[in-house]
Amino acid sequence: MEHDPNLRITLLGTGTIGLSFAAFHLSHLLSPSQLTIYDTRPDLETYIQTHLPSFYTHHQTPIPLHKIRIAASLQEAVANAHIIQESGPENLDVKKKLWKEVEQYAPPDALLWSSTSGIPASEQNASMTDRSRLLVVHPYNPPHIMPLLELVPSPSTHPDLIVRTQDFWRARGRVPIHLKKEVTGFVANRLAFALLREAIHLVNEGVVGVEELDKIVESSMGPRWAVAGPFKSYTAGGGKGGLEGFFGNIGGTVQGCWDDAGRVSVGDGSGWEEKIFREAREAYGVVDTGERDVVTRRVLNVIEEEREKRAKVGEIPGSLDA
Amino acid sequence: MEHDPNLRITLLGTGTIGLSFAAFHLSHLLSPSQLTIYDTRPDLETYIQTHLPSFYTHHQTPIPLHKIRIAASLQEAVANAHIIQESGPENLDVKKKLWKEVEQYAPPDALLWSSTSGIPASEQNASMTDRSRLLVVHPYNPPHIMPLLELVPSPSTHPDLIVRTQDFWRARGRVPIHLKKEVTGFVANRLAFALLREAIHLVNEGVVGVEELDKIVESSMGPRWAVAGPFKSYTAGGGKGGLEGFFGNIGGTVQGCWDDAGRVSVGDGSGWEEKIFREAREAYGVVDTGERDVVTRRVLNVIEEEREKRAKVGEIPGSLDA
Repeated sequence: MEHDPNLRITLLGTGTIGLSFAAFHLSHLLSPSQLTIYDTRPDLETYIQTHLPSFYTHHQTPIPLHKIRIAASLQEAVANAHIIQESGPENLDVKKKLWKEVEQYAPPDALLWSSTSGIPASEQNASMTDRSRLLVVHPYNPPHIMPLLELVPSPSTHPDLIVRTQDFWRARGRVPIHLKKEVTGFVANRLAFALLREAIHLVNEGVVGVEELDKIVESSMGPRWAVAGPFKSYTAGGGKGGLEGFFGNIGGTVQGCWDDAGRVSVGDGSGWEEKIFREAREAYGVVDTGERDVVTRRVLNVIEEEREKRAKVGEIPGSLDA
Repeated sequence: MEHDPNLRITLLGTGTIGLSFAAFHLSHLLSPSQLTIYDTRPDLETYIQTHLPSFYTHHQTPIPLHKIRIAASLQEAVANAHIIQESGPENLDVKKKLWKEVEQYAPPDALLWSSTSGIPASEQNASMTDRSRLLVVHPYNPPHIMPLLELVPSPSTHPDLIVRTQDFWRARGRVPIHLKKEVTGFVANRLAFALLREAIHLVNEGVVGVEELDKIVESSMGPRWAVAGPFKSYTAGGGKGGLEGFFGNIGGTVQGCWDDAGRVSVGDGSGWEEKIFREAREAYGVVDTGERDVVTRRVLNVIEEEREKRAKVGEIPGSLDA
């Protein structure tokens, strides 16, 4: 699948995730491969021509709209596809109905991917005849920039589907990570929300403001974790003793922070929402994600460049998708 | 203090934090400013000549060892200093005794900074005659690379001391953040440890391995938060609705992750330590922080470059130390 010049990918749904995936695939498709797009919105072709280019700004060449085929029906959209990627509404009934229908018309060996951020494959596949065909492929938004894909199979997903999906993304320089169990929110969001909860607590307690807290993260663990994740960082922190040495030295401080951590909840009536939403509005208004994405792309390029440099001279044998 | 060519900085303690601060100050001192170093180790001069250069590898010019003065006693070390920065052992009694002595010999307007990662100024200053003179200035390791400094006053710290300390670091391109209250572990570590706890839980539950979890962070929130902290990111995620819009859309998922979050503890007997220390050892052995620091510096430079570019054309009025 890596070098197939006749690859046919079908996207179902054209919200921001769908369009971002469209931009990604267009920049990686070898001619005469085709990207088929289907959505129930009435003005689909005009809509795509209007909105897709803003996801393609980092390329030197114009967006290859000629590689896009607009499908008139779901059946037409999936009939000849190698890959069918769904980025529709986060609604279980909609997804269940969709996969039941896709299954009728799609080739038997097509990869079926859902971009859902929360509805597990084991629920989405409930009306399918062959439940082994579906895999959650959850991106980190926006997927045309961010390298992560969380592959979250249901217990019945066929293992071969996971392998073929990993091959596809790795061949395109992405980082597909296979989650061994379906868990609420998957991994990336759970980690991020754990930090967010403590962030809300500390701002709510008046220790720092919203913008100050962001500056703290931007000038400490943000760049650190872009280069070396938390386990690697704390393994480094323990020197020759590794992660065990780290906990030996400051395990008490770690536990002290855990014991003292905040436990805010959504709608808990403590008033944190009002305070923090207001502070965020005053600090940021509406955020320009275009600027953010340009900088993020440069950061990712620098890291990738350094990784390749080291892989080449053999100093670090591993790489992102080791 | 920003442009003083006669600045006299004294460092007390020459562990990795002390040497890292020494490297930072040496690369920012205007001649004929002086860096005085004091430690009770017997072979101090040889020790510094041997170990300091590894903190100075990113500079084109050789390390200006001639700007360093080795003090023979604490009294000599602090007698004429503008800034006295302590990076000694994390021991309350040692620090209490030190500040009592420093106070006797230091000029009355000298800035007194502790690099402690956990012992609040309100405890360290207990034996001082004038408790208003001490401020915690907690770096994110290693400080010659990482921009963050957490300024954590005790309730009795003089406000002027905070302002002068902020001025010093901002003039040198760093990010000093004033914490309004003394809290266990300060802010950066509390945030990072909150994420670490969930990371440990997810690996312990067998959802992903140590190395996979790191790859998830490195390819998602790491680079994201290097560019825009969590509040800014989720404000962006809410589009025109901002942070409130974000919680309106997926507050239920956020709460679901919070409700399901792990609650591992240090030494809780569940066996997570054995499993996770082993996985980290197998994945990373002893981490080469030199490589990590080179890449981190490039990442920080790219972000700074983009920030300056935008500040110049007036697209984004804010900057790191706005």
